[in-house]
This record gives sequence, structure tokens and C-alpha cells, in this order.
Amino acid sequence: MEKITAFTISREWPHPEVLEDFAQLRRYNPLVHCITNDVATNFTANVLLAAGASPAMVVAIEEVEDFVRIAQALLVNVGTITAATAEAMLKAADVARQTDTPWVLDPVAAGALAFRTKIIEKLMRFRPTVIRGNASEILAVSGAAGNARGVDSTVSSNEALDAAVKLADSVGTVVALSGEFDYITDGTDVIQVPGGHEIMTKVTGIGCTLGALIAAFLPVTDSPLRAATAASVIYAAVGERAAKGVRGTGSFAVEFLDQLSSLA
Amino acid sequence: MEKITAFTISREWPHPEVLEDFAQLRRYNPLVHCITNDVATNFTANVLLAAGASPAMVVAIEEVEDFVRIAQALLVNVGTITAATAEAMLKAADVARQTDTPWVLDPVAAGALAFRTKIIEKLMRFRPTVIRGNASEILAVSGAAGNARGVDSTVSSNEALDAAVKLADSVGTVVALSGEFDYITDGTDVIQVPGGHEIMTKVTGIGCTLGALIAAFLPVTDSPLRAATAASVIYAAVGERAAKGVRGTGSFAVEFLDQLSSLA
Amino acid sequence: MEKITAFTISREWPHPEVLEDFAQLRRYNPLVHCITNDVATNFTANVLLAAGASPAMVVAIEEVEDFVRIAQALLVNVGTITAATAEAMLKAADVARQTDTPWVLDPVAAGALAFRTKIIEKLMRFRPTVIRGNASEILAVSGAAGNARGVDSTVSSNEALDAAVKLADSVGTVVALSGEFDYITDGTDVIQVPGGHEIMTKVTGIGCTLGALIAAFLPVTDSPLRAATAASVIYAAVGERAAKGVRGTGSFAVEFLDQLSSLA
Repeated sequence: MEKITAFTISREWPHPEVLEDFAQLRRYNPLVHCITNDVATNFTANVLLAAGASPAMVVAIEEVEDFVRIAQALLVNVGTITAATAEAMLKAADVARQTDTPWVLDPVAAGALAFRTKIIEKLMRFRPTVIRGNASEILAVSGAAGNARGVDSTVSSNEALDAAVKLADSVGTVVALSGEFDYITDGTDVIQVPGGHEIMTKVTGIGCTLGALIAAFLPVTDSPLRAATAASVIYAAVGERAAKGVRGTGSFAVEFLDQLSSLA
Repeated sequence: MEKITAFTISREWPHPEVLEDFAQLRRYNPLVHCITNDVATNFTANVLLAAGASPAMVVAIEEVEDFVRIAQALLVNVGTITAATAEAMLKAADVARQTDTPWVLDPVAAGALAFRTKIIEKLMRFRPTVIRGNASEILAVSGAAGNARGVDSTVSSNEALDAAVKLADSVGTVVALSGEFDYITDGTDVIQVPGGHEIMTKVTGIGCTLGALIAAFLPVTDSPLRAATAASVIYAAVGERAAKGVRGTGSFAVEFLDQLSSLA
Repeated sequence: MEKITAFTISREWPHPEVLEDFAQLRRYNPLVHCITNDVATNFTANVLLAAGASPAMVVAIEEVEDFVRIAQALLVNVGTITAATAEAMLKAADVARQTDTPWVLDPVAAGALAFRTKIIEKLMRFRPTVIRGNASEILAVSGAAGNARGVDSTVSSNEALDAAVKLADSVGTVVALSGEFDYITDGTDVIQVPGGHEIMTKVTGIGCTLGALIAAFLPVTDSPLRAATAASVIYAAVGERAAKGVRGTGSFAVEFLDQLSSLA
């Protein structure tokens, strides 16, 4: 990756630029259209509300076109995809592309299951503004986009980062690669964000809701790279604060929302 | 609104009549059939359990008729409606009307999306016992019921209250209008209930679960006006108590269930 | 039940054998494929994560076959069954049986509704490794399996226990009967586990998530009887600990996950 420029975000909070973007999000209160999975839907709505955005889960094929036109951003998360929701996702992504509504694709378990992998390939045609996933998912989507990589759950961060940069560059999108460190890249720059706390992997939907928060930042920041970075930095800060003195995974999830809703 | 009688419920708790109704609910433990949205379904079940009712989410078109016949009340909330759930909602409402099972309609986003607005119009033919919604939704339903009003998200409370009274009167239903103050009307009387706390708008599903609690009160009170009032008064009291000393939106939701389950 | 051997698990924690199984579960981190109801899906994922398993909710008919082949165990809970999910459940159970993947059936409301009762009958053909239910449900499934019993919500524990033993024996499965006491039987032995705390009945999905935890134990214990017993003993211990000093149903659910994630 000799041609790219790498930046590292420090673990300090408040981070001035992110704080500014966060204030903007709270002022603007963007309406975020979410087509997400059954497991994370409640937590996603609560994360968006805690952050200062307005969530709306509209999933019927009869309604998604109308609602994408109303919303300021769209999240498509394929976690519990079915044939019916796949149709709604494709329609929503198509309209988002036509109307220049920024949208985030979260390709949960891409590569692991043939049905969703094909749908994700089709979704990629509507060029998501940001793709957020873990190493395996980014590698799988990268393959789907023509970079011909296999899926490996034990992939190294470096291998996935390489794929993320190429994917971002070839598709013209931003890739947010989640892991011990988060990497956000537009194919030219790579931002490294220190991860939050390990307990975040023990609460369902933390990754899924990060995708939603990225979507919320898209209409209020001047670039998708900045939007994804802001969301990741906030997640790291909130996760670290919430982990302090927590007694287990139940209180962590509660504390996570508390910290997010009061972050300043 | 010269012909109507207005009452104001004080913010004091315990309110003797409501406390009596609440004791009745806990004794009777009504089985509440909920067809609600994906976001609020877990919180709805927990709110009903905390209040002393028995929730049951039965959504298959093959099952709703049988279950409405078993249940003491029905909630229909169109938040994440699809073509499949719309059929189930219409069937359930039809059977509720035929069997005199009291039912609540929560017309989420009525007027904002054509598909659900049409379904809501059809649902109105089965005359809900109570309609619960915010100002925009009540105005939209009011239009659907022949009062020809537009939808406006910045509508004044007075305009919506006027529509609520007319809607209640023309349809022969009770309307529970949620906002800074809640208004409950049967077209003749208007009860004003002081709202809870502003943080209630930052937790997903608080409004949706109020609809469920109204449904739970219907089989144990002597009028729908009283049922909706009891639920609103309890929500205001519980919301205010839960907001005290809370650290953010996460702990508020937890505290809300704690206060509701221990309210006396 | 003269021919069966009864064991009683004491209320003491730590229980040495269960602790060993629990350590095994945490080491092995089994991937548990869940097809469960809309109400419990988030809590189920969080319970499995707190226990040390990996949950995955894959529900599309196009995906369940592939995913059962990947997963170490399967949970089928019919709580909010529809025609579409019924097909996915039947396909998943069929593949589980073919591939010897251990699976748990939670026949929510069996006997109360004709549609699901028929689906449950069909699911029984794929011989679940464990059936978990309350007295009414076990009696209903027992009838479906040819033992010709009616459904009665006020059935006595003894009557249900008798049905549970016969059901386990005739089908060649383990039955986990939930109630004030839990009984686990393979048709020969009966293990009695002291229940947890009464507040557990006031939080939605506690029973449903017990089914998921049983599924997680199946691939790491040497018998389904031991797996179901381990999960029940842990639930009783965690429930009792979580109930201490709790302020209501909201904080109980949080404390339940905290205790489960830190149990040692």
C-alpha cells in the first residue's frame, strides 16, 4: 500500500473535528431509513436516538421507494435477509443511488451463504456510499466486486486492509473495516481508529449499529470518509467509557446508550 | 370546541381512580394480542408484563382469527407493516369487531406513506375502540375518515385536538393524542394528561407501548375513555419517576420498566 | 413412574459437573443457529453471547440448509411462526436430522392454535434432540406424538411430568419441562432442578432463551440430558442471583445478563 496515506486517530476524547461533526448531527437530526436485521432493530433505533438522529424502519417493498425519498440516509444490513426483504433492499438501494441519498451497506456474513452473497453482489451495483464489515465480509465483498478473494474467518488484518483499499478504489466507495482496530479508507487515505473494548463483541448488534451511526453522519459531514471516521471514533470512545466499572454484558449495553446520549 | 367538556388530570400520584383500574388490571391479568412493529415488539411484551398483563404476539394470517377469539384485547400497530402483516392486521381487526373484542389502532406514520395509509383506512372500517397517535397521525387518520385534513409534521396541538374530537365523534371511538400533553377524547369529553419527561421521546417504542397498555386496560375499565386515561396517567407518572437521576437513554428504559413493575 | 430414576439437583452453586460443562461451552464457543420468535431474538443473541456461545439468526428458506451444515446446534422456536418461517423451520430440522446436528424444539403455545400445532407435529418427525416447554405445551406435543392428551393451561405438574417421561421415551428425545421446578427426562431418568425466581416469568423471553442455552450445551456435553440439565441449573443460579436487590423487571433483565456473563 505504498501509494496510500495513513493517519492514526488518537484515543483521546474529545477529538475536536469529530465533536464538531457530532454537534452538527445533533442539530440536523437526520432521518435515517433502516432496513436492518431482526436482532439489531431495537438497539439500532435506540443508538440513533441516543446519538441525536431519527430512525425509521420501513421495510415493505410497497413503501421503501417513497421513504428513501423522504430520508436523509439509508442503512441496508442483510443480517436476517429473506427473499422479501432482499427485494425491498434492492429497491431502496436503487432509489438511493438515483436520488443521491447516501447509503451504507452492511454485508453481514457475506461469502458464507450463497443466497445473500448474490444479493450483496446486486446491491453493490447501486454503489453504497460506505461499506462496513469485518475482515471476512470485506474480503468476500471484495471478491464479489471482481478482486477474486476467498473468505477466511482467520484472515489477517493486513490482508483485509489491502482488500478494503482496493475495494474502495475500484468501486469508488468508502470501506469501514471493523476489528481490533477500525480502518476507514476511500482507496487513497487510510484512517486507523483504535478499537473500543473487547466486551463490545459480546453484545449483539454493536457492529450493526455502527453501520447505522455511519449512515446518520453521512448527510452532516463533508465526506463519507469523515462520516465513517466520526462514527468509529465515537464508538471507540463510548465503548471504552461504558466498559469502565461495568458488571457484565447486560449493564454494558445500557451504559453504552447512556454514554452515547450524554457524550460531549 | 364549545360543546365539549375538558378535564385536567393533575400530575400527582397516586391518582385514586387510576390506581383502582391498575389494581384491576393486575388482578385480571388480561391476555393482550399484539400485532406490532419489529422495533417495539420486545419492549411491548416487557411493558405489558411489567404492568401485569399477558402479552402474546401472534402474527400469522393462519392464526390471528383463532387468537383474537382467545384474547381479551388486541393491539394493531402498523410501524413496520408489510403486505403479509397487513393481511393479518385486517383479519384480526375484522374478527375483533365481530366478537366485540376491544382493540387499539396505532397508525404509525399515517399520511406519510401511501401504502400504509390505505391499509389504515381499511382498518378504520372495523372501528377501533381507541386510536392512539401523535398530532400528524391523528390528522391523517382524521382525513381518511372523511374530515379531509392534510398531514403536517409541524401541526399545532390545537389543530390536532380539534381533529381528534371530530374523529372520535364521527367514528364513535376514543382518540388518544400523544404529545407534550396527552389528550384523550370520546368526542364529548376531553381529558388532558400532563406528559411525562422529554427523554421519553429518545427511547424507541415508548409511544408504541402506550398503545399496548391502553389495550390492556380496555377489558378491565368501564369505558375506553377511562382505559386510555389510566394508561396515559401511568405513563406520565412512570416516565417522570424514571427520569429522576437517570444517566442517559439506556438506563431510562430500564428504570421505566422498574418503575412500572413496582408502581403502587 | 415406578421404573424411572429421579435425581434432585441442589440449589448450591457452583455445581461441579455443570461448571465443567460451562467451561467447555466457553472454550468451544459453539455456533448456534437460531430460528426463533420476533420478541426474543435480541435477548436470545445476548444470552448466547453472555454464556460464551456464538448466535446466528438465519431464517431465509434459501439459507437454512447451508447454515445448519455450518452450525454446531440448532434452535427452532415457533413463538411468532408464519407460513414462511414454518417452511424454513421444517427445512432446517430436516437437515439437522440428516446431518446429526443436535437441535432443540420450543413448541410455544402448542395445542392452543391449530396452524402451529400442525407444524409442530411435522417438526416432531425430525426428532428434536431436546423439546423444551411448559406443562401445557409438553402435554400438547405429547398428544401430537400419539399419547392423546388434551391441552389444559391449569394442568398439574405431575400430569405433565408423566407426559414428559412418556414423550421422551416414545420419541427417543429429551424433554425439558419448565415450571416452578424444571424437570429434565430422557424417558428413563428424571432430573429435578429447582426453579429460579418468580420474577423470571415477568421478563419476556426467559423461557425462550433457556431453549437457546440448551442448544448451546448440546455439542459440548456427552448427553442431551446433561446439556438440558446444565442449562437449567445455570438459569436457576443466575436467576436467583440476579433477583437479589433488583428494583424491578427492567433491571432484572440487565442483571440476568451480567450474572450469566460473569458466572464462575
